[in-house]
Parts: sequence; structure tokens; C-alpha cells
Amino acid sequence: MLKISHRGNIMPSSPIRKLVPFAEAAKKKGITVYHLNIGQPDIETPKAALDAVKNSDFKILEYSHSAGNESYRRKLVQYYKKAGIDVDYSQIIITTGGSEAILFGFMSCLDPGDEVIIPEPFYANYNGFAVAAGVVVKPITSYIETGFALPPLEEFEKAITPKTKAIVICNPNNPTGYLYSKEEMEVLKGIIKKHGLYLFSDEAYREFCYGGEHFSAMNLKGADDNVVLMDTISKRYSACGGRIGSLITRNKSIYDTAMKFAQARLSPPSFAQILGEAAVDLPDDYFSATKAEYLKRRDLLVSRLNKMPGVFCPNPGGAFYAIARLPIDDADKFAQWLLESFSYNNQTVMLAPATGFYGTEGLGKNEVRLAYVLNSGSLHAAMDCLEKALEIYPYNTASRSLK
Amino acid sequence: MLKISHRGNIMPSSPIRKLVPFAEAAKKKGITVYHLNIGQPDIETPKAALDAVKNSDFKILEYSHSAGNESYRRKLVQYYKKAGIDVDYSQIIITTGGSEAILFGFMSCLDPGDEVIIPEPFYANYNGFAVAAGVVVKPITSYIETGFALPPLEEFEKAITPKTKAIVICNPNNPTGYLYSKEEMEVLKGIIKKHGLYLFSDEAYREFCYGGEHFSAMNLKGADDNVVLMDTISKRYSACGGRIGSLITRNKSIYDTAMKFAQARLSPPSFAQILGEAAVDLPDDYFSATKAEYLKRRDLLVSRLNKMPGVFCPNPGGAFYAIARLPIDDADKFAQWLLESFSYNNQTVMLAPATGFYGTEGLGKNEVRLAYVLNSGSLHAAMDCLEKALEIYPYNTASRSLK
Repeated sequence: MLKISHRGNIMPSSPIRKLVPFAEAAKKKGITVYHLNIGQPDIETPKAALDAVKNSDFKILEYSHSAGNESYRRKLVQYYKKAGIDVDYSQIIITTGGSEAILFGFMSCLDPGDEVIIPEPFYANYNGFAVAAGVVVKPITSYIETGFALPPLEEFEKAITPKTKAIVICNPNNPTGYLYSKEEMEVLKGIIKKHGLYLFSDEAYREFCYGGEHFSAMNLKGADDNVVLMDTISKRYSACGGRIGSLITRNKSIYDTAMKFAQARLSPPSFAQILGEAAVDLPDDYFSATKAEYLKRRDLLVSRLNKMPGVFCPNPGGAFYAIARLPIDDADKFAQWLLESFSYNNQTVMLAPATGFYGTEGLGKNEVRLAYVLNSGSLHAAMDCLEKALEIYPYNTASRSLK
Repeated sequence: MLKISHRGNIMPSSPIRKLVPFAEAAKKKGITVYHLNIGQPDIETPKAALDAVKNSDFKILEYSHSAGNESYRRKLVQYYKKAGIDVDYSQIIITTGGSEAILFGFMSCLDPGDEVIIPEPFYANYNGFAVAAGVVVKPITSYIETGFALPPLEEFEKAITPKTKAIVICNPNNPTGYLYSKEEMEVLKGIIKKHGLYLFSDEAYREFCYGGEHFSAMNLKGADDNVVLMDTISKRYSACGGRIGSLITRNKSIYDTAMKFAQARLSPPSFAQILGEAAVDLPDDYFSATKAEYLKRRDLLVSRLNKMPGVFCPNPGGAFYAIARLPIDDADKFAQWLLESFSYNNQTVMLAPATGFYGTEGLGKNEVRLAYVLNSGSLHAAMDCLEKALEIYPYNTASRSLK
């Protein structure tokens, strides 16, 4: 009689976290594990922002406004202005991480059975929020050969059905690191305007663009009613544990609806709102410094990868992820093998198999995502491990073909 | 073409927060508003718990484990042991407030169209989470004449259909303050065992019981697979803004399913986990002191209310809420009138109309919920306001019948 819900049964496990027990076992054996598998930066949270929390002097940790503290929302207007995005504080809802912004966006705009198109590979947790909302994800494939550029217009047109209600884009992209150009964003605008679709734009990595300029979906002219921005301070200020994000839209109906979901959960976390508000006042060179650090790491990672026999890694234009094609048959097996059966100088590396980021069964089997969230020394050590591992991995497809 | 979701349309607005603009307008006129409308205590958050956050010395605000920090979960085992509840840390998921525990519980156990029985009046936000999960709430009425005791067994039996999957109980109750007895909990056990239902038990106010002993649903023998505890530190430690709660169950399938939802949102807030962990080490007399304070306030509130002509307020056995029947025709109108058209010594009081807590249309129209979250001085002043207001309120039904 007692049954788990169908939704609970089809809810996907985190494709990244399922390797965790193998990593824990490796560590228990005394092996150092370099975590390139998750987007947890080793960059320190800005001291001034942490200090704002420590120096707060309230006596009661009260509920905040359901939309977040008004002072914080007003402050965020300044942040967005600097980022070239013009919003009013009344268009901002502070959420519990970017995660809740995704959930509120889906809940407010989509009904069970509705379809949402997402270029794959994509951030795996979109699947989780889609299941929670009863929404069907329709992936369209982007390819490593093009560096994971936006799939052509025709692919979107082919995927659109009467049930299609929205497109989700992550720019710059997690997991590919691809930075969508203004032209690609304009293509998306054409599609959402033509078909009357919502565009959910996840811009968690806005500051981390190398080479190109970031073009926000909020700046697509004439698409104000279509666009919902899903944002977070997690990566921007290395403040993942704060659980503070935002949902921003100029569509008042969506805003008012999302506010009803926001009221039901009362308020976003108070402590990290203080941190987020203080972070807006960080000196302008804060992002230049972190961006320079990530750029250095990207160059190191991509260069090391492409020197390994049979490995191909396109140069990502943003975020702090890269997807590499490895000379292996099965990335899940390989990632597990790295933790279970391999070490080099008592060290190994943890990777995220790309299969978890594809919606289409069978894709990404020889690809892995690498998060360059570690300092150069650790990154080099991790690349040494990967290089050695590929040399001795029994199922290296390149070496087999060489034989 | 762009439409808000059906779920977004039927999502209820917060019945408490819709009066906020009238309160803001009153304040702008210089009127002091006593907030008896929300469960935001004026009790200070324990300094030792706040200091634990301020004295933390991490450099990176990292994601925690999706189930919450292991150290915190292990610490909570001690807290629950003191509360007479025997759980293992592996049965605890730290959630973002009690709100998220409710959401995860509903998502994991219930599918769209499933029915959940809740004695009314009930915590209004259960409606919101039910809408988010597509679940149908079937209220069964408890009555002010019995002090809002558990409706009789027959009422549950009448309400159960093949779609019924769960019962939600809040003990001690928000909004009624009713403390369910061990006998009533055993009646519930009989029902859930007979019909194979889940029992979601919201025990946010466990510490605040006056007179009777709290009996946790976790201590219903033989019902381990049925019971899901939804808990929060918000009221316990006056830490509403921390957004830390927990979902606890001995049913491993539910636990594992809820963990998938927990992984999708990555982690609960890190700062307030530190606060929650430190709070477990507060001296044993911490709760005696806060409980004594709330008891004093309850006695003051209930005694003042029952002295007012035409007012009836049963003596609540727990939490910090009371529901009173007033000699009025429409509590929503009256609550608005108090803010818009009334003041006494330049003060007024904000109440929560009980209509928002009933699932059955038309019930609670002459009832209000009062949260005794203010100190005795403010409570007296608020009661003075209410007393005067009822004297001059043009739609006082008692004075009309006297005429």
C-alpha cells in the first residue's frame, strides 16, 4: 500500500554524486583525489563579504521578505547595471540558490506534460527540476566538433511541438564552457518570438568569459515577456554554500506567480543575503582577478588535455568547465576505475562522465566534464594522473587501434 | 501564446501576507502596528548559536553534503534523543526550512491527483506545497468548541478514498495551538496502518507544550514505514531566517527518494547549519525559559480575550498560537478595518483571519489567529486595541444582537 511516488521513482540520481562512495574509499586508502568533478571552486569567498555576515549585529534571525530583503534587491540593481542589464528591484526575487530560481520558473510557467527544449549536454539538475514539475525535457544535440555551439535553427524547429513551452539556455554553458554569441542569442529570440515560448536563461557564470563578450538574454529587445533570468551568487563569489540566487523577469505575470511560490516557502536564507549585498560593493577589479585566475587554469587544462594522445578538448569561451573526448569506451567505467583501481604517486583524479549531461541515451560515452576549480599546481598534478591513467587504462581505444 | 501555468494560477496567495500593504500604509501614517498575525517571535536568537556563525573561520563558503553536514546530523541525533526520539543520523536530511521538508515529503510520496487529509484549520502553506506537487488537500473539520481536538475516527473514514495517500498532522498545532494527546496519535496510527497511508508529522513547536506532554509521531510503534517527520529550527531557537529544517524517516525508500530531490538542489544553507549545530549544545534550561515566557503570554492573551464581550478563545495546549471567535461577521474585513480605519492611542493590531486556514469555503469567517510572539507589554497594548476596536466596530454582531 505504501508506495514511493512515480515522480520520486523517475527522479534521477545526481550523475556526479554517484561516484562519491568510490572517492571516499580511495581517500580512506590514503590516496589524494583531485576533484575536477564538481563546480566547487577553491577560490576564497571574498573576505569583505564574509565579514559582513560576521559583523552583523541583529539580535533575532528573522524571516526576510519573501522576495528577499529590499535593501539587497535594490543593491542588486547596481550589480546588474554594471553587468549591462537594466532591471528594477521590483523585478527581482531572491531565491534559495539558482536551484530555486529554476524550480520557481518551471512551476510558474510550465504544467505537467509541457515540453522544454534544452541543448545537450546540459546541467544535469535541470532534469531533476523538470521531474519535480512534471515537465518533459526535449534535448537537441550540440557537438564537441563545433565546441558545442548552439544547434542550428532547423534543429529547434524540428523539436518544437504543440506542447513546447520553453527553451532553457545556460550561458556561458555548464557543462561545455561554450559562450553563446549575440548572434546565437538573436537566433533564440527569433524562435521564442515566433512560437511564443519562454526563454529561461541561466547566467550563473556571467563574469567568467574569455575572449568574447557576454550577451544576456535580458538584453534581447522585444522579448521582455518571454525571458526569465535564473541567477546565483554561488560561482560569482565562490559562495556556493550560501544558497542565494535570483529569479528576474520583466513579465509581471510570471513575477507575481513566482512570488506565490516564494511566499509558500516564506523567505530565502537571511545570512547569505547579507553576504550577497556586501559582495556588490566589492572593488571593480574583484572579477578581473578571479577571471584572470580561471583563464590561466583553462589554458593550462586545455593545453595539457590536447597534448594527450587521442584526447580532444575544444577551448571553452566561458564558465570554468571543459568537456573532453577521451580515447575510452565508457566514461562512467573509466571515472570509477580512476578512483577504484588507479593511482599515480598516490594521487588520482575524479571526473564527471558526460553521459549524465546528455538527455539522449548513448551520447557522451567517451566524454568527461572537467571543472578547472583547482589551482595550477593541483591541476597539473591532476593532468599528470589523467595522462598516466590513459597510458595504462586497459580499454584505451586509441592504444588498441594503434596496436 | 505565453501563458502562466495552471498550477501557477491556482497557487494560493499567502492569506497572511495579503494584508501587508494595509499594515504598511498604517505605519506610514505613524501608527504602531502590533503584529499578532505571523509566527515571527520577538525572542532573541540564542547568542551562543549566532556567535558560532560569527566565529566560524572557513575561507570558502562551500556546498555542504546534500543531506547537510554530517557533523550537524550526528549532533541532531543528540537533540532528538533528549526529545525522546530515537533516530540515526542516516535517517536525517537537513532541509531549507521546514518548508522544504514538506515539499520533499510530498514530492517523494505523492503523485499529482493523490489526496492528502488534513484536519482544518491548518497551516495555510500546506496548500501551496500541495499545489506545487499537484496533490489534492481533503480537509476534515475540527471545531473551536472542542478546542480543535482531532476530528473523530469516523470523519477520517468518511474522507478516505482510493486516492488517499497520506494524512498531515501538525502537533502542537499551528494555527490552533491544540496539543494532540498520545491517544489521539494512536487513533491516527490505527487509520494509517489500516489504510496504508503516510503520516506527515510537522512538529515545529515540539518544545512549546503547556500542561500536556508532547507525543511524537516517530514514537508510534510499528509505524516506522508510514511516518515522515517534518521539522525546523525556526521557532525552537527563534531562527526563522536561517532556513534550516529536517526531514526524518525510518522508511529507507522515502529517505533515498527525498535524497534525490535534495541532490538536485545541491545543499541546504551552510551558515545556519552552523547555528543549528551550536544550538544543540545550549544549556538544558534554554527551553524552560522560552517555554515559561510563552506560557505567561498565552495566559495573558487567552484571559484578556475571554473577558471581551462576545469573544471565545479556547486555551491552547502548545505552540504560540490561539484561535479566537470574535463577534464579527467577516474576519478578513475586520482585519483590514483594524489597519485601515482604526487606531487607539495611535496603535492598532494585525490579526490573521482564520478563513485562510480552512480548506472548506465559508468556515472561520468569525475567527482569527493570534500569535503570542510579543512581550507582555506589547500583548497588553494589542489586547487594549482589540477590545476598543470591538467596542466601536460597526459590524459587531454581539452589540447588534444586544440592541
